[in-house]
Amino acid sequence: MLHAIVMAGGSGTRFWPASRAALPKQLLPLAGEKTLLEDTVDRLDGLVPPDRVMVVTAGRLLDAVRRQLPQVPDAGLVGEPCKRDTAPCIGLAALLVARHDPDAIMAVMPSDHVIRPAEGFRAAIRQAAALVEQSPGRLVTFGIKPTYAAECFGYIQQGEPLKAAPAEGTAAVHTVAQFREKPPAAVAQEYLAAGNYLWNGGIFVWKAATILSALAERQPECLAHLRRIASAWDTPDRDTVFAEEFAAIKGISIDYAVLEHARDVVVIEAPFSWDDLGGWSAVARQRGGDTDGNTVVGKHLGIESLRTIVHTGDDHLVVTMGLQDMLVVHTADATLVAHRAHEEAVRKVVAELEKRGWTEFL
Amino acid sequence: MLHAIVMAGGSGTRFWPASRAALPKQLLPLAGEKTLLEDTVDRLDGLVPPDRVMVVTAGRLLDAVRRQLPQVPDAGLVGEPCKRDTAPCIGLAALLVARHDPDAIMAVMPSDHVIRPAEGFRAAIRQAAALVEQSPGRLVTFGIKPTYAAECFGYIQQGEPLKAAPAEGTAAVHTVAQFREKPPAAVAQEYLAAGNYLWNGGIFVWKAATILSALAERQPECLAHLRRIASAWDTPDRDTVFAEEFAAIKGISIDYAVLEHARDVVVIEAPFSWDDLGGWSAVARQRGGDTDGNTVVGKHLGIESLRTIVHTGDDHLVVTMGLQDMLVVHTADATLVAHRAHEEAVRKVVAELEKRGWTEFL
Repeated sequence: MLHAIVMAGGSGTRFWPASRAALPKQLLPLAGEKTLLEDTVDRLDGLVPPDRVMVVTAGRLLDAVRRQLPQVPDAGLVGEPCKRDTAPCIGLAALLVARHDPDAIMAVMPSDHVIRPAEGFRAAIRQAAALVEQSPGRLVTFGIKPTYAAECFGYIQQGEPLKAAPAEGTAAVHTVAQFREKPPAAVAQEYLAAGNYLWNGGIFVWKAATILSALAERQPECLAHLRRIASAWDTPDRDTVFAEEFAAIKGISIDYAVLEHARDVVVIEAPFSWDDLGGWSAVARQRGGDTDGNTVVGKHLGIESLRTIVHTGDDHLVVTMGLQDMLVVHTADATLVAHRAHEEAVRKVVAELEKRGWTEFL
Repeated sequence: MLHAIVMAGGSGTRFWPASRAALPKQLLPLAGEKTLLEDTVDRLDGLVPPDRVMVVTAGRLLDAVRRQLPQVPDAGLVGEPCKRDTAPCIGLAALLVARHDPDAIMAVMPSDHVIRPAEGFRAAIRQAAALVEQSPGRLVTFGIKPTYAAECFGYIQQGEPLKAAPAEGTAAVHTVAQFREKPPAAVAQEYLAAGNYLWNGGIFVWKAATILSALAERQPECLAHLRRIASAWDTPDRDTVFAEEFAAIKGISIDYAVLEHARDVVVIEAPFSWDDLGGWSAVARQRGGDTDGNTVVGKHLGIESLRTIVHTGDDHLVVTMGLQDMLVVHTADATLVAHRAHEEAVRKVVAELEKRGWTEFL
């Protein structure tokens, strides 16, 4: 059976002050009316029933996640006691799912990307599940056709097309020649020109048993810790064991831990648009702008303002006058005003706040 | 005896959103720790006792004024039922003061200017009172030596120096050749070059009886209304008569009504610095800036920001990043972000809010 594993542990700082330690990006309605997490789970409607959805988040975010996802049973909410990257997260999910469904296929996905249309996503996941059924040891990844020479994404180089001709209406599938780290500009340009490099969407489909075998081979220590957690899962010791054993794991990404070394890895050319929403300009791209190029959420009055992003509430008026290419983010206790050219540096703000000990704003 | 009349009815919109209809400029601590009104009344310490201070404000501001000036007895607080410019305000104050002190000398002053040092101001007022004692029908004005060709102030052209040589330590006094309206740039430049034009500080010293005679001559209707108000002042009908009669007066400034037509008008060259605080840049001038030229009130973190004015509270953090010559004013329900080149246009915001019916922000 198909299970969905939604990774919702992100603690991004690019959307400060809208995003906070206690309210990270995936819990914000950045791209529309619903939060990115809500959108991610809604996208599974008709693909996976809520009782086969598992959301892995940070322990401190568990209550907030529960409020946003009333349809997901409590058994499907996992709160990590600390942050250990994607391999431990996915490994634990695989163990927990395999307890009741040893033959489970897992679709693993981030909770903070914008993917449209949902039907294209569901079709691609169904296609991936079929590819796994075809070859149970297979790892399926999803690649997005690059539209520019992005330096901020990992890339997947397509190898040979998969031998079986794609069925009508399904996406192209290739073997993976190699995974590539975020490249410098010149290299990204080469990838774009080559035409057979795709952005790594961070979405994976595979059998729980397959990923557990791979971890047993490549990350036996990690898996040993995870097995101890899974053994205690249905006992009163769950929290204690989870906290102790998870803390003892060395954080590593599933890409490093498994994917880059695996044999049967294929990549589906995503039949959906994808945006990892890396900052406010991506939000503006997703939401679109008015005739002056301004993108606004909340109560705003603009006078001679162009290409400006305003993010506030309906209860707090932001007036912009004579601005060009600016970013104004208002929240109850903090406001950021920045030139959009400095968008990437929003992280610096968070670092500076930490340095000053102004923890109430983190 | 010397009485002080503080005119505190202003409803300026240049400091929106910090200033509001219910909290205009004079009630804000724009130039320092105290509000402009508090500073104005503090400046009278040692010159006029609190029971000879009269503050004339708008009726709706009376409670706020009372809270800021606990030292002024209630009898000294006058709340105008509507706005009628300076002549009716000063005329009424003259009538009220003259009831108990027919020989009173009045020092009339705005409540929203920055004047330093206070001792220079007090010395100039004492000198003015002496000039009035010397010639009871005299009207004394105060002129500020221009430092640039300002277009936003009225000017006073100095005539002949007053015959009696100035006493040691007192300021130069001249007759007034003429009053001049806010001039266009070229004319302001001529005034500056001529050297005998001073900015009109809007501060006046004269006998109550003198200004009442002048009003009787030039504005008999206005004075008739004011007399009816004064007659009802100590009766239960005060509020009703004040509201009816004051509303019936045609608003006019004391400059138009009296000063421009008067015979014995002199101007003291102010031995104090003066700033009418016409906008945020004036606030920055008064408060000074940090090494990056930023002027900040409240909690702020600046990253690569230059010549930027930030006005917030200690409970709301404003972060500016990559800004140059910007203005950020945060208040509980509204935030303004503007390029400083648009400072003069803050009034437009208020006009637009009125047009949209967003009255909660006025």
